[in-house]
Amino acid sequence: MTVSTYWCERALVDGDVHESVTVAVADGRFTSVAAGQPAPPGSTRLRGVVIPGLANAHSHAFHRALRSRTQARSGTFWTWRNEMYTAAHRLGPDSYHRLARATFAEMALAGIAAVGEFHYLHHQPDGTPYDDPNAMGEALLMAAAEAGIRITLLDALYLHGGLEGSGYVPLEGVQARFGDRSAVSWAERVDRLGAAPGGRIGAAIHSVRAVDPASMRVVVEWADLVSAPVHAHVSEQRSENERCLAHHESSPTALLGEAGALGPRFSAVHATHATDRDAKALASTGSVVCLCPTTERDLGDGIGPTALLADAGVPMTVGSDSHAVIDLFEEARAVELDERLQAERRGAHSPTELLTMATSNGHASLGWPDAGAIAPGNRADLVAVRLDSVRTAGATTETAKEAVVFAATAADVTDVVVEGRPIVADGRHLTIDVAAELAAAVAAITER
Amino acid sequence: MTVSTYWCERALVDGDVHESVTVAVADGRFTSVAAGQPAPPGSTRLRGVVIPGLANAHSHAFHRALRSRTQARSGTFWTWRNEMYTAAHRLGPDSYHRLARATFAEMALAGIAAVGEFHYLHHQPDGTPYDDPNAMGEALLMAAAEAGIRITLLDALYLHGGLEGSGYVPLEGVQARFGDRSAVSWAERVDRLGAAPGGRIGAAIHSVRAVDPASMRVVVEWADLVSAPVHAHVSEQRSENERCLAHHESSPTALLGEAGALGPRFSAVHATHATDRDAKALASTGSVVCLCPTTERDLGDGIGPTALLADAGVPMTVGSDSHAVIDLFEEARAVELDERLQAERRGAHSPTELLTMATSNGHASLGWPDAGAIAPGNRADLVAVRLDSVRTAGATTETAKEAVVFAATAADVTDVVVEGRPIVADGRHLTIDVAAELAAAVAAITER
Repeated sequence: MTVSTYWCERALVDGDVHESVTVAVADGRFTSVAAGQPAPPGSTRLRGVVIPGLANAHSHAFHRALRSRTQARSGTFWTWRNEMYTAAHRLGPDSYHRLARATFAEMALAGIAAVGEFHYLHHQPDGTPYDDPNAMGEALLMAAAEAGIRITLLDALYLHGGLEGSGYVPLEGVQARFGDRSAVSWAERVDRLGAAPGGRIGAAIHSVRAVDPASMRVVVEWADLVSAPVHAHVSEQRSENERCLAHHESSPTALLGEAGALGPRFSAVHATHATDRDAKALASTGSVVCLCPTTERDLGDGIGPTALLADAGVPMTVGSDSHAVIDLFEEARAVELDERLQAERRGAHSPTELLTMATSNGHASLGWPDAGAIAPGNRADLVAVRLDSVRTAGATTETAKEAVVFAATAADVTDVVVEGRPIVADGRHLTIDVAAELAAAVAAITER
Repeated sequence: MTVSTYWCERALVDGDVHESVTVAVADGRFTSVAAGQPAPPGSTRLRGVVIPGLANAHSHAFHRALRSRTQARSGTFWTWRNEMYTAAHRLGPDSYHRLARATFAEMALAGIAAVGEFHYLHHQPDGTPYDDPNAMGEALLMAAAEAGIRITLLDALYLHGGLEGSGYVPLEGVQARFGDRSAVSWAERVDRLGAAPGGRIGAAIHSVRAVDPASMRVVVEWADLVSAPVHAHVSEQRSENERCLAHHESSPTALLGEAGALGPRFSAVHATHATDRDAKALASTGSVVCLCPTTERDLGDGIGPTALLADAGVPMTVGSDSHAVIDLFEEARAVELDERLQAERRGAHSPTELLTMATSNGHASLGWPDAGAIAPGNRADLVAVRLDSVRTAGATTETAKEAVVFAATAADVTDVVVEGRPIVADGRHLTIDVAAELAAAVAAITER
């Protein structure tokens, strides 16, 4: 068994930043963590402040192709969705593999050690399954493995084209790609997905717009059997709440609760327009809320009730979702800053709480409870953040935590280790030319 | 007369991004701009997309020392102000020169060609003038010259410690440093300020909290005589509105209007809680509003009525103010993104409008109407932004403008030319080790 040793100039251990921290790693896990020792001979030195690996709890990898392509005109979430559908239409297993590999590598550069990929682009454009019905999901699993990060593939059930006044409407246009024949057919397909090492299969209920209550129950049963995470988009838009209430006489959260979905393995993604009663239901069941603030800004979703959720004791996570930005420091501080805009007060969420959202809470919500903290026995993920860039200069050990959350950007990440394996060094991905692959993969999708 | 020539892979000219743009510069001004030509021999090549120099229309340089030092606890604008006052107490002309030089150099790295420094730290800690009563202002002028950027020193009148139920209260504690004996004494001092080349002297009325109406008039008269910009903090906090209304039966904007301050040379900084009537008054007088979104987020000020201001035809500018972040791309996109959070709609401000805020509008508000656009006769400021970083990869000439506003960060600025003089190349300041000087200057203020 090979033991490797890292010496960190500073490291975040047990909620505080300590100086001169030595960690030993064997078989991808920390075997010891000790502060205040000089660097042992032969150890790899990590400068600045070393934090646990970040968890990106909500991602749609292909949205990376939309970055700076949806900003020219005005509109709403719904007009944006039309542009997103155009990109979705063009992808196949090979082109999706290339785009996702580059996008996950961009995540690695930002210090992300694990991604929750909320996946609904399952079939051929006309809805016919590929010869391998999991070709698209497997492309995503392979992409993450190549980028060097863990993935939880949250395979999403998507059966209906929307919930209108008349009830659920059929899939239309590009949505044909998203749909399995039924929830049972979804479960059969997902059962055939084999996760590679570093991969895990979870479930997703796309939303109350796309999945009826009976079908939700099938997903919940599948997930309960294998103890898998279940994620769902919840109350991102007011109109979802209104239509759900009109049709089901329930809020989306309540409807998911009736289907048995809520619980510690459940993440409600967004919950922007969750009510007080929803927050109580999420809290009482131990459910998680995944916030995606840069996407919620971008799409004009509104500001979520994060102070209310924190008061109710709901664990929160963060995700870069549409990848308008891939920077979990920006996501974490946005949780607090957008709450400040709403409440006109500072400090609903402390820097420690914000970092917990981006690390251990996120990993746990993706089925990796033994990640996100630098502690013996945990998965050995390390992220070194510079304290000597123009953005972070002036920070000290005492203020390092605040500097990471409120001053650093993804560009300040210099080194990333995932389960003991170096992925990023000196700000460069060790195996992928990320910007070049991104440019080529995006061009392949967007050029006509 | 030396003529230098730059060839830009792409450049923003007349509102659109063109390819292969050659600009000639003599005496610090553009003499010609031509698109579609190959690079002339001997020209300096600038890659990515070249935009006009950015203008940071509102800065308090010394707040840079507070970055990541005010985030640990909860509170309000007013508790934050106490921490800011502690830093203010420690500065002298030498330490302020060092801190401002490093901060202005951080701005140069972010593509900022001109700063509006809203300056109120005039005197010794007990209020006694320095032997040279403009020692602090001159330190700022020198700092900007050394960092290579233009400065408009907006010398602020600050007479009162606040506007309470009882009326104006005396300066207290560290505020003693801010105060001149009277508005006339302020004008006499400011008259003695000589701006170096690249510097300009403007006026500021700190706020309706710190300046009574009769004293405002003195500032306005001084500024009218020399056609100087006049800036004032306006309606950043609701309580300012309430106290102003209680004491003066006017909103802050209306009070400034009665004092003759409004007009094309006037910038209302923040205007977060400006009313519809205030917006009309600003519009009808040709006044400008300076938005500082990252500061307004940080301090929990709230979201300003930027769609209303745009509809009313009020020109807007942006500033990094408290320097929680120095990144005018982030400020510009935040104007739009925070409006989206408020309105739950996208696109109140187009990418072109947002870039105009950060460039020509900003320069004009600082008294440099011949800057902020790449056009013959204008000041020759150029900023090259990478389109091949992981953040911007995938952008094309067609989407370059959106990529700059919505995807780029200050870290994507590679080259900066101010009035024909190269200041930043390959992402490095040519004369200042910015991060090292920031670290030393911040430590000198904050360590005990």
